[in-house]
Amino acid sequence: MTPETHEWAQSLDTLHDQAWKRLARGVADRRAPCRHPTLATVDAEGTPQARTVVLRAADPKAARLRVYTDRHADKVDEVQLTPKATVHVWDNVAHLQLRLIASVEVLIGPAVEPVWAQLSDHARQCYGFSPASGSAIDDGLAYDKQPSADSLAVLELTLQHMEVLHLGHRHRRARFSRSDGWSGQWVTP
Amino acid sequence: MTPETHEWAQSLDTLHDQAWKRLARGVADRRAPCRHPTLATVDAEGTPQARTVVLRAADPKAARLRVYTDRHADKVDEVQLTPKATVHVWDNVAHLQLRLIASVEVLIGPAVEPVWAQLSDHARQCYGFSPASGSAIDDGLAYDKQPSADSLAVLELTLQHMEVLHLGHRHRRARFSRSDGWSGQWVTP
Repeated sequence: MTPETHEWAQSLDTLHDQAWKRLARGVADRRAPCRHPTLATVDAEGTPQARTVVLRAADPKAARLRVYTDRHADKVDEVQLTPKATVHVWDNVAHLQLRLIASVEVLIGPAVEPVWAQLSDHARQCYGFSPASGSAIDDGLAYDKQPSADSLAVLELTLQHMEVLHLGHRHRRARFSRSDGWSGQWVTP
Repeated sequence: MTPETHEWAQSLDTLHDQAWKRLARGVADRRAPCRHPTLATVDAEGTPQARTVVLRAADPKAARLRVYTDRHADKVDEVQLTPKATVHVWDNVAHLQLRLIASVEVLIGPAVEPVWAQLSDHARQCYGFSPASGSAIDDGLAYDKQPSADSLAVLELTLQHMEVLHLGHRHRRARFSRSDGWSGQWVTP
């Protein structure tokens, strides 16, 4: 039942490197596990919230990720009030759980125009609804799409900590932090 | 690319019913998407945290779920301080996202003895590490397993809201709340 340990899970450097490889694959490949992380935030009542998002960019040098959203979505209000998020992935191919704790900046307006310009017509359909996303409606289909650059928000996630768990013959877990240059620390699973 | 709409997604009652069917399947079937939800909590610094858990029980009448954990895990401290959680599942078979907002009670000690008694030796290996889960260690394998009933905690999740999103030819999203008897309200996706 228990998967064998991957060689890259045996040292902190290679484990950290593998986490970023999986994230890069998520950006490039629609079917990779890291394509669809869960983004956890905290709402105005202090309640944790979570939803699936699409990973749009992963920059290992800056340790930054990007996610796009409708700017009217609750998660935008949430991170404007509490600018923190955790990006969670269970990668069943690599037997790897990533828990990426990040500070969040919301980009809207002119800052996202270059992103909008590169989106296909199909992709643009996700940004802009009437009534706005989250509004109560009389029927499940009682809404229209009104795609517009004004409705696009980019969440820029600057990682502060990475908690990486590899499930092998014996599990290995490590914490990496921006504050110590991502050198890493093994911890008990 | 876009999946067809399932018939059960077209009314609030059948959508709510389907959500519970998928959860029940997660408890019964190791390979069902609802077997491994993501549990989001809030830590002492107000930062959202998230990790994969195993769904152990789902009671549609009481609208309660159960998850087991090592009682030394950070998530136990987190829900003892902020007794709220969101259980998140993306069910790629049903094209269904479940966001289940719950209050949380932690059961330990005599209350979990009946659970411990029913766990296999293999399952018990997940509860009890030395040094305790989350401790800094010199090497990735510098820990021992010390399974013990004292190390088992059961998280009892009492759902307050269910946010259900079905991805179909056109998406449908609904909110269900304990306070109105789970009658449900369509909202814009």
